Amino acid sequence: MAGEKESAQDPVPLFGDRLDRTVRERKSVVAAGIDPTLAMLPPDLAELARSGPDGLHSALSDFCLGVVMAVGDLVAAVKPNIAFFEAFGLYGLTVYKSVCLAAADLGLLVIGDVKRGDIGSTAAAYASGLLDCPRPGIRRLAAIGDAGQFAREAGPLLGPHDALTLNPYLGSDSVKPFLEKGCDQGQGFFILVKTSNPSGADLQDLRLDSGETVAERVAALTRDWGGAWIGESGLSSVGAVVGATHPSELCRCREIMPSAPFLVPGYGAQGGTAADVVPAFRPDGSGAVISASRSILQAWKTENNPLDWQGAARRAAGAMNADLRSALRAAGKGEWL
Amino acid sequence: MAGEKESAQDPVPLFGDRLDRTVRERKSVVAAGIDPTLAMLPPDLAELARSGPDGLHSALSDFCLGVVMAVGDLVAAVKPNIAFFEAFGLYGLTVYKSVCLAAADLGLLVIGDVKRGDIGSTAAAYASGLLDCPRPGIRRLAAIGDAGQFAREAGPLLGPHDALTLNPYLGSDSVKPFLEKGCDQGQGFFILVKTSNPSGADLQDLRLDSGETVAERVAALTRDWGGAWIGESGLSSVGAVVGATHPSELCRCREIMPSAPFLVPGYGAQGGTAADVVPAFRPDGSGAVISASRSILQAWKTENNPLDWQGAARRAAGAMNADLRSALRAAGKGEWL
Repeated sequence: MAGEKESAQDPVPLFGDRLDRTVRERKSVVAAGIDPTLAMLPPDLAELARSGPDGLHSALSDFCLGVVMAVGDLVAAVKPNIAFFEAFGLYGLTVYKSVCLAAADLGLLVIGDVKRGDIGSTAAAYASGLLDCPRPGIRRLAAIGDAGQFAREAGPLLGPHDALTLNPYLGSDSVKPFLEKGCDQGQGFFILVKTSNPSGADLQDLRLDSGETVAERVAALTRDWGGAWIGESGLSSVGAVVGATHPSELCRCREIMPSAPFLVPGYGAQGGTAADVVPAFRPDGSGAVISASRSILQAWKTENNPLDWQGAARRAAGAMNADLRSALRAAGKGEWL
Repeated sequence: MAGEKESAQDPVPLFGDRLDRTVRERKSVVAAGIDPTLAMLPPDLAELARSGPDGLHSALSDFCLGVVMAVGDLVAAVKPNIAFFEAFGLYGLTVYKSVCLAAADLGLLVIGDVKRGDIGSTAAAYASGLLDCPRPGIRRLAAIGDAGQFAREAGPLLGPHDALTLNPYLGSDSVKPFLEKGCDQGQGFFILVKTSNPSGADLQDLRLDSGETVAERVAALTRDWGGAWIGESGLSSVGAVVGATHPSELCRCREIMPSAPFLVPGYGAQGGTAADVVPAFRPDGSGAVISASRSILQAWKTENNPLDWQGAARRAAGAMNADLRSALRAAGKGEWL
């Protein structure tokens, strides 16, 4: 109890510094996407899932937690996309929560890929539900007796989350309630700037009369939003999602946002290579995590090895990190790895 | 059972026609936003909420369902915003589900204000979880034995939903999985085009080199996405969110999207008036529902009448509809009301 009291006085490091430390300590720039579907379950778990509601819940949970445990010391973060849990309704969301808790227990950063975006008062409600979940070292700054505290004690919240992805379409007042609640608690945010999917271009690549693209404008907003929370590492609490499928835009985005952590999806199944993502990193090799989901979760299929799905996931995550480290070293950005 | 088999053969009407029929039958253009916060609870329920997790769950549930029952015959739709339920974690989401079920039982359209937006494969996961929830007349088209069916039987999904709000920032492939799954099941979608919040302007008002604004470009995409699902009423299954706080843009959006149902937030607490929202309606007065949340849920505060919070909500919804009908009649768009 004395120890707890003392630690309650410590300032919580800003997210950019937490990310930088985690990546350096673990020598990994991989974020494992945890996006389960029924088709990904190995045969024994697929059979369990077919046995009914309890079986489905157990199978999803066993698979997701099994992958998190298998890759735990080879990655810096896990990034569960809540859509794949919401697909299984309320039971699925309890598995989402289990994934977050298990990853936090392993010392991994938990990036909740929730892509929330709504008007200010609604954004504050989301922030309350998604950022207030207890985690050692995060919760201690929260005020006692406020509505958030009240809600926290009322049942299981989603999380814990170290970071969330946010959608910028509703502008500043949809983002700021998250920053104001989370940044001083050590939490971070990745704003969708340039997404990895082909039709991200529909809006994000539109050219403005100022000469910028929409994505470049969002990048400038993201830089501005994060200006108040830049840590000792030089990294901000407010980062950007920029897809691996657009290497030249990774360069451009890094120019616009020199302090933003980048979360880079699209490596692997979506076509991005290690060389493609090198521009996401700062000149010293810091400042980015690269996420992959299908190539890790379904590695047992690639290996044709359904009995060792955990080993296959582990080998895929390790190979991915080795591939990225090698590309960073080749580009002169990887001496620290 | 014979009757059930027969009804399984009937085509499900398209969402635009369902919306048009519901509005005409109920003579109401109001969508009641169900966005509960602790501060909105009347004193007796606030006390119950403070008694612990079970009490909070009961109080939230009693309040939301009480408001739905009170306004049920005066509105066309309810629009629960999932953020306000997610704020209370997994227990809160069970209340969200109760609200959807209760509203559906009353014959109201259920518009899930979820603002989802993600890449194609992830959008499909969201669509599965949010559109597959059983509801008489909706579920019957779903294929038996597919993964969706499997998941549906595995536990409570969120919903039922007649329509969802969607965020367009990720472009066509983030929207189409929803349309392809839901439109033929009678479900509809409201794409965020021009939101009611002040900083919606940050992105949505940016001027493109084509001369359009970003919001106008999204309006054109929305029109194109909905072209394949226009019902006998002339209304599409794919509509638009356009805020009441921007009357001139309501006009412009109606020009660009003549067949789109409009979901118009921002009346009341956010400042929009009945006259402001008239341009959202088509020349014959069809094609729009106007949503308000705080002015209905907190009407007991406005009336200083905590003991009759249900009556106050009912009076607020009725007064809002009367105000809108009167403005429509004054504009020559309201003969059918």
